[in-house]
Amino acid sequence: MNERTLVKNLAALPDGPVTIAGWVETVRDQKKVQFVILRDESGAVQVVNPALRELPEPVEGEAADETAPARLATTEAISALAHGSFIRVTGELKHDERVKLGGLEVKLATLEVVSESNPETPIAADSSLDKRLDWRFLDLRNPKQALIFRIQTTFLHALRGVWVEKGLIEIQTPKLMASASESRAELFEVDYFEGKAYLAQSPQFFKQMAQAAGFGGIFEVGPAFRADPSFTSRHATEFTSVDTEISWIDSHEDVMALHEELLVAGFEAVVAKHGAEIQEHFGIELAVPSRPFPRIPLAEAKQIVADHGYVVPRADADMDPEGERQISAYVKETFGHDFVFLTDYASSIRPFYHMRHEGDASLTNSYDLIYNGVEISTGAQREHRVDVLVEQAKEKGLDPEELEFYLDFFRFGVPPHGGFGMGLARVLMLMLGESSIRETTFLFRGPTRLLP
Amino acid sequence: MNERTLVKNLAALPDGPVTIAGWVETVRDQKKVQFVILRDESGAVQVVNPALRELPEPVEGEAADETAPARLATTEAISALAHGSFIRVTGELKHDERVKLGGLEVKLATLEVVSESNPETPIAADSSLDKRLDWRFLDLRNPKQALIFRIQTTFLHALRGVWVEKGLIEIQTPKLMASASESRAELFEVDYFEGKAYLAQSPQFFKQMAQAAGFGGIFEVGPAFRADPSFTSRHATEFTSVDTEISWIDSHEDVMALHEELLVAGFEAVVAKHGAEIQEHFGIELAVPSRPFPRIPLAEAKQIVADHGYVVPRADADMDPEGERQISAYVKETFGHDFVFLTDYASSIRPFYHMRHEGDASLTNSYDLIYNGVEISTGAQREHRVDVLVEQAKEKGLDPEELEFYLDFFRFGVPPHGGFGMGLARVLMLMLGESSIRETTFLFRGPTRLLP
Repeated sequence: MNERTLVKNLAALPDGPVTIAGWVETVRDQKKVQFVILRDESGAVQVVNPALRELPEPVEGEAADETAPARLATTEAISALAHGSFIRVTGELKHDERVKLGGLEVKLATLEVVSESNPETPIAADSSLDKRLDWRFLDLRNPKQALIFRIQTTFLHALRGVWVEKGLIEIQTPKLMASASESRAELFEVDYFEGKAYLAQSPQFFKQMAQAAGFGGIFEVGPAFRADPSFTSRHATEFTSVDTEISWIDSHEDVMALHEELLVAGFEAVVAKHGAEIQEHFGIELAVPSRPFPRIPLAEAKQIVADHGYVVPRADADMDPEGERQISAYVKETFGHDFVFLTDYASSIRPFYHMRHEGDASLTNSYDLIYNGVEISTGAQREHRVDVLVEQAKEKGLDPEELEFYLDFFRFGVPPHGGFGMGLARVLMLMLGESSIRETTFLFRGPTRLLP
Repeated sequence: MNERTLVKNLAALPDGPVTIAGWVETVRDQKKVQFVILRDESGAVQVVNPALRELPEPVEGEAADETAPARLATTEAISALAHGSFIRVTGELKHDERVKLGGLEVKLATLEVVSESNPETPIAADSSLDKRLDWRFLDLRNPKQALIFRIQTTFLHALRGVWVEKGLIEIQTPKLMASASESRAELFEVDYFEGKAYLAQSPQFFKQMAQAAGFGGIFEVGPAFRADPSFTSRHATEFTSVDTEISWIDSHEDVMALHEELLVAGFEAVVAKHGAEIQEHFGIELAVPSRPFPRIPLAEAKQIVADHGYVVPRADADMDPEGERQISAYVKETFGHDFVFLTDYASSIRPFYHMRHEGDASLTNSYDLIYNGVEISTGAQREHRVDVLVEQAKEKGLDPEELEFYLDFFRFGVPPHGGFGMGLARVLMLMLGESSIRETTFLFRGPTRLLP
């Protein structure tokens, strides 16, 4: 492995020889001295080189400066450096408080241009989001964009730590299915040898299968696919879904308790590891949410926003995005909390597999989790009684015949269970105050975007 | 949450009242006493109930036994219990060395049948693999099958621990692509609004993109898709690929070093947590492999097996599955090692993006990792010089125009890099001596299997 010191580790080193490697962020090519800002995945550092613009005239009686030709070549190489080229630099690390960038610099000894960049960069700081996505690999060189994925890494690792600690089993459910998992309307169809397959819209059926298999509790972080033609800042045709499902619950309250625990662990890890960088790049003082998160039955939430002058313009019992923003603002003002569980959604607007209230079939044991005004997750206790499940499917206009493979899961016993699915890019978007999940998805996929 | 004690935690408890919940594995319904083996995700325990077969005759002058009706009802409920039903039991835990199953039993106080199973179980211990896969959720109730996924959970968590510790970034690459990532021949086509998309055969292009983005190193565990019509024990149309890619390498040797480190960490965690269970269920004394793993150039490996009497029946430079078994046996005998890196594959049998030897373009900086006779992984240093890459693509008969989006990644500088992809189900299959990846995949997908 090439011995190189990550830029973030330079500060702890004493003055002395170092090797660093990364890409050229900027070059300041002054007559007497050249500055290169070298960035790697961990940070940026100033490299300084005294310029030698021409070979010194030979002076009679003095030996020629043998280093001069190499110094001239280095000077010319720096002058020719394209923004973005990857370079390896050896030199002397020098701590110097006067250097704005981290209080240190590297005095160049050797420069190797490892991989040259095309000098014409297709995007700039003010490029449109769409243009930046065309050149996503360059966009991600921006330390702010890259930080998003380091935060995501920390967040997911913390969640998995909780799951593993609790003894839950990680599963990888198939994304190729014989039929729809959620809605026929938003289904991608795949040519599958002589027949057809469909891309999973969620791992819903399979994570329930794991409960029938006696797994007790499972988790999965994986892709989900929706053939949704919408172009909002919150929708994608492919997204990363964070899923968990647990057995032996009493109600959706147990699911919410796990949900809170996971998010708190995720936020704790992110704040501890990236709090300062988040402040620097996003101007956000990220705090760990307190437990319990506020809970408001959906009907009550609609009344609250109505009392504040906003009547949700929907014929059905559901909330709308503006209503979610308003109830979130109300919760922030009233309880000082960024999260709110809206609970007990009407059966009429929930899938057939959500369990309904005992004694009031019009309501479900379900919730949406709203974070900073946007829904990030749906959770529920599932109906595990197969006769009730069949009735509810029929009531929703589904054909139980098509669901046979799923209904079978319930015919050989299944414990009471529930879980949630959460959109990873939405969590990151709202955590960092970004305007679109396109910013917080490694490579966004939408109705008109399959590239790069 | 329902208060229940996991079966595995009973041993550490003193005698006294407990609540347990799980499914009925067996019922022994003797005249005077009934035994139920209750299994949950952590283990099995014997529940014992003194049978009361009929209400005692009233005896004049004595008060009737008020508990008798309930005891009669419980006895009858146990007699009627179907294998597989989920039950909740309260009772008295009693440690008793004479009880074979864990040296303890629970004397039943109350029984709740939470979810009844259809009494006719469609699979038995001797059912064919295909039949078991039809009823995978029942098959997975077998503690041996479930253990596979607990092992997988431990294994993956250990790998991620290494990656996170090293500062690598977790990415989720898109599975919907505008064109092929590997081979046109094994590509699934998706109807994508007015056009077509293709399912990613590997995250290859995107994990390389992350290097051009300056991420330094990345990892991903996610699905990959191959429209491969073969029915071998090692192939699936959808499989979980374990991927990593790192920058600033000198050669594929750096990739192999990381590969070893990850596997050793995974095996250490699995042996520590599940060693005894693996011995019990699979009869295998799993050991942590020693580093370094043996390395043999492919040409030399072919010579070795030829010297042992097996000439690989292929016209090209490649190994075949039987050759892999034989070289693996040779390595086991010679070096006592279960793993072997076969290195320096011929350029003619490697993809265009593998870097070739400096000074000998007929060989690549690549390897396959063979474990217990089967290939589990391919790794390589990638070609990062765009002009060379274009030439190599052309030489392989690829049209650079179709690869434009990928070639762009190399036009703005990219550090030397490499990585590997590893089939998760194969690792588990070989670790546990299973005969097929169908056993070690949560839900197998093949040319004729999309259900359940």
